[in-house]
Amino acid sequence: MASTVLYMSVSLDGFIEGTPDMPDHGFGRLHEWVFRDERPQGINGQIWDEMLSTGAVVAGRGTVEPANYWNGDHHDGVPIFILSRTRTESEYPDVAFVDDVVDLMTRAEEAAGDKNVLVHGVTVARLALAAAVLDEIELHVIPVLLGRGRRLFVENDEQIELERTRVLEGEGVTHARYRVIK
Amino acid sequence: MASTVLYMSVSLDGFIEGTPDMPDHGFGRLHEWVFRDERPQGINGQIWDEMLSTGAVVAGRGTVEPANYWNGDHHDGVPIFILSRTRTESEYPDVAFVDDVVDLMTRAEEAAGDKNVLVHGVTVARLALAAAVLDEIELHVIPVLLGRGRRLFVENDEQIELERTRVLEGEGVTHARYRVIK
Repeated sequence: MASTVLYMSVSLDGFIEGTPDMPDHGFGRLHEWVFRDERPQGINGQIWDEMLSTGAVVAGRGTVEPANYWNGDHHDGVPIFILSRTRTESEYPDVAFVDDVVDLMTRAEEAAGDKNVLVHGVTVARLALAAAVLDEIELHVIPVLLGRGRRLFVENDEQIELERTRVLEGEGVTHARYRVIK
Repeated sequence: MASTVLYMSVSLDGFIEGTPDMPDHGFGRLHEWVFRDERPQGINGQIWDEMLSTGAVVAGRGTVEPANYWNGDHHDGVPIFILSRTRTESEYPDVAFVDDVVDLMTRAEEAAGDKNVLVHGVTVARLALAAAVLDEIELHVIPVLLGRGRRLFVENDEQIELERTRVLEGEGVTHARYRVIK
């Protein structure tokens, strides 16, 4: 059974990006471990391989539009599902828009077959978590206190239990994987 | 050389306690791994031993007053230094009040000799971090999204780099240790 997995780089103080006054909005610091033209070595390469062995990609427009929809191909031509209430037509054959997060995740899971679904972007992740359609969270914890910026987890009335399933120590990053207990 | 080490249980979303409407303010959930009458088993016991092999304790009044100053003895009669701008006299011989965080940490380090200093409490930790007198952070990361409560790290204009020095997987908790790069 496919699992929907959020992969997210985050500072130790919980930010997924900084503020406009920081170099590259703090985004560069959080993605040093993976923003290279080539596959990183060691543990970080293992995580890279896992991300690129997923069978579908889910994202929000805030993620894909700055990335220009990855020119329609995130990796290996796997289908890409974008959460949008307004867009329906895509210029790329492998990119589809879906207006509901549960439908979004269901369609991605079906498309991924026995592979996992790579979840990109904090808005989609929050909505999926709230709708109980996010199965796993893989945090790439960066050893920095960024101080300010956009948080991964916002204030929430619901308490959500997790199960730690794996911790891997990559160079300059700790990969901590959790399963959401539903 | 002694090291000043913050030991802190924290939810994955960054809270050190919840809100009054939660059972035990959420505090119980975050301390299940250590709130027992006896030393926990395995990795968690190793962390317990480390905390109790420190040579001095530093805390704020928000920590020690609800705990009734640990009746003057946190463990093994090591000296206890409390940050307070107003109090000076203590009823316990091993408890001293210090009004400045740098003096507080310096006195605790001197008292601890070649042992580490156990830092208790979020206010002292924040002040010590800002004053560059906190050497290490040992987070006990609990696999729960608490949703609301009191954060360990608050918004801050300073970006602080850390070095991950150890990750240990205890039962129901991940112990992640960092050295503050000054």
